Amino acid sequence: MVAGPAPRPLPNALLLGLIPVASWFVIRPLIDPVPQVPAIYSSIGFSLFAFLITISLEILLKVYSDPIPESQGLVVACVYILSLILFIPFAFTRSFNQLANAKPSPEGITVLEFPHHQLAVYLSSIISLLIASFLGFLDDVFDIRWRHKLPIPIIASIPLLMVYFAEHGNTNIVVPIPFRGLFGTLVNLGPLYYLYMIMLSTFSTNSINILAGINGSEASQALIIALSVIVNDLLYLPWAVWFRIPVHLLGSKADIEFGGLWGAGMSKGSQVLVERHLFSLYFMLPLVAIGIPHASFPGDTLCYLAGMAFAVVGIQAHFSKTLLLFFMPQIFNFVLSVPQLFGLVPCPRHRVPRFDPETNLLHPSKAQFLKPPSKLSTLILRIFSILGLEERLNQLLMCTQVAGSVVAFVVRYGLAGLVYDGDRR
Amino acid sequence: MVAGPAPRPLPNALLLGLIPVASWFVIRPLIDPVPQVPAIYSSIGFSLFAFLITISLEILLKVYSDPIPESQGLVVACVYILSLILFIPFAFTRSFNQLANAKPSPEGITVLEFPHHQLAVYLSSIISLLIASFLGFLDDVFDIRWRHKLPIPIIASIPLLMVYFAEHGNTNIVVPIPFRGLFGTLVNLGPLYYLYMIMLSTFSTNSINILAGINGSEASQALIIALSVIVNDLLYLPWAVWFRIPVHLLGSKADIEFGGLWGAGMSKGSQVLVERHLFSLYFMLPLVAIGIPHASFPGDTLCYLAGMAFAVVGIQAHFSKTLLLFFMPQIFNFVLSVPQLFGLVPCPRHRVPRFDPETNLLHPSKAQFLKPPSKLSTLILRIFSILGLEERLNQLLMCTQVAGSVVAFVVRYGLAGLVYDGDRR
Repeated sequence: MVAGPAPRPLPNALLLGLIPVASWFVIRPLIDPVPQVPAIYSSIGFSLFAFLITISLEILLKVYSDPIPESQGLVVACVYILSLILFIPFAFTRSFNQLANAKPSPEGITVLEFPHHQLAVYLSSIISLLIASFLGFLDDVFDIRWRHKLPIPIIASIPLLMVYFAEHGNTNIVVPIPFRGLFGTLVNLGPLYYLYMIMLSTFSTNSINILAGINGSEASQALIIALSVIVNDLLYLPWAVWFRIPVHLLGSKADIEFGGLWGAGMSKGSQVLVERHLFSLYFMLPLVAIGIPHASFPGDTLCYLAGMAFAVVGIQAHFSKTLLLFFMPQIFNFVLSVPQLFGLVPCPRHRVPRFDPETNLLHPSKAQFLKPPSKLSTLILRIFSILGLEERLNQLLMCTQVAGSVVAFVVRYGLAGLVYDGDRR
Repeated sequence: MVAGPAPRPLPNALLLGLIPVASWFVIRPLIDPVPQVPAIYSSIGFSLFAFLITISLEILLKVYSDPIPESQGLVVACVYILSLILFIPFAFTRSFNQLANAKPSPEGITVLEFPHHQLAVYLSSIISLLIASFLGFLDDVFDIRWRHKLPIPIIASIPLLMVYFAEHGNTNIVVPIPFRGLFGTLVNLGPLYYLYMIMLSTFSTNSINILAGINGSEASQALIIALSVIVNDLLYLPWAVWFRIPVHLLGSKADIEFGGLWGAGMSKGSQVLVERHLFSLYFMLPLVAIGIPHASFPGDTLCYLAGMAFAVVGIQAHFSKTLLLFFMPQIFNFVLSVPQLFGLVPCPRHRVPRFDPETNLLHPSKAQFLKPPSKLSTLILRIFSILGLEERLNQLLMCTQVAGSVVAFVVRYGLAGLVYDGDRR
């Protein structure tokens, strides 16, 4: 093998500075005084390690300039899953918290040990993530047509569904207030709930991938969604501080209460809600950690991984409706792509803009009609054209995603009070 | 792509005949009267389906004669793991057994519902198997040197160890009678037990692979070991029949008691032992099912999968010593291979016999010494030569494996009574 150029020295200050910080976070639960939620420290610690490893890989690969960004996605997925696996004893072991049990916290909600039956749920989520990354890798290697990719998230969500069933997972949904006269407060969807979960996995996985096809920025989208989920989770945790955001100005009945040891913010004293959002954090923190060094495109593997991770937390932590609010730009793009997805308009392999070396300009991807489009296609394209969608699509995607999340929070904590009561989901 | 010959029609009688049989087995637990151990029927059913799918793939691929036996190993591994995942609700769901609970069995040990905390153990085993197959696939694709393969089973066993720790798994070992004066009846190995588990995974995975390098028959070895484990498991289950094998003639204190509804054979009334061996059966039955159509070599993926499956049942069902007895030919080969493994003798990429087209004979793999071997190497080779090992190695491997299992049973149920008391492991 020909020796490449010597690897550029890693940014040592960053590396050397972060290693002890990450180590301290990992072992923090073992140090007295035990914090309110010990395992979250370890989760942050493992996320920092995942970040360090990912960024080191990124630098190493850039130096060697090997054309393997796609295999790299696999390595990064492995780092993510390994950090989730190594985290298991910190979240689920009683003996780690004996220290804490000796001196129970004098006030507030304390999550010293994660409920043990959650371990099966956690493990089934890991299996789903493994299958999703694995199939994503096969997709990268063998370049599967998107029509054949559709079943991938369905297969990946099977472990999730099986364990949800074996654990007698809740299949009830809360009915919005205007419809309660018809359906009552709760409706048991039964098998339809499982269908809903499959559709959620399929959507969250593919929608990022479809939008990524346009601008090659799947990691940025996933990152913003993950950060939005984290912000949402933090509202439900017990914090030593407490404050109130006056969202009644936006039309909500109650303000957002953030933090507070006893009430744990939006959890309003419910230990279950705190645990659900911790579960979500355990998956989202390392996802952000591996996502940050990958603003450039890392292949399909990370798309599937991130999409499946969102589905996992949406399903298992029971905030799928809130999650879908964070997916507004993807939903919009999905609707926009329907003509191509369902074959009304020819769909190129990738819809990235084409670079013209003479003019130095990027030209948007164009679909060639080999035969005249049908009336339906023509109609749909006219509507899009009138709305001015196609040309502006690629602009401001990231801003849209951020703005979408802001709107999502307003809808979730402002307007939702009009159709749902109190602190549900 | 050039179109291959039309696929040969599948042996329809086999396929059509087995589908309803397999379906009946899968849904048998839902039919009244509920059997003594309902889930084992579903396990057999899923194994039959796995067998059917694997054999169909085998036939299809042979017809097209594509040179992809190695990717095929991956597909087969996926079939195996998917059958394990789909089996989850049958083994772990309470509602599936409400029917049975209504009419409890009038006599004997009944395993209507698998203990729920076992679900986490089951899932962690699946994660380990997934990682092992995945890394095995990467090995197939990228052809990793064996020295770099050694960590693969270690990584794959991490989920197993993490959950074992989180579940406060037993780290005691039973001391053989002659040493009890020194150590007592039980010794708590603590962290050393985890080291032992890692070594067991490494050994069971690599030993099959190393021996397979010689004759390309990893599937046959794995099959015989899996069948031996199944026979061993069956001794511990509750059967309607009961009989006794007079092993006291071989030196055991007690005879082997096979079956019996109350005593459940070797379990002697212990529900825990029944459950452990059921756990083992759930992994071994589909392994045999996917192994049978693969007497020819299926690449490294299946090696890793099978090796990890053995490690999983040995560890989780607590019969690792018995398992190692079934590995006697592999242990022997490992000792034999030590000079090449540790670099004393040059080791070719594959040690398969070379075919000479002129004489139509197979010649054993030969190592070329580019420089004279060291004194230690010479000494070891002389010893092997005196014992006549190298030349006879490739003969009668399968017979050796079967004979090894027979000896293992004699040792386990005959001689073990001399150093262990009663019905332990």
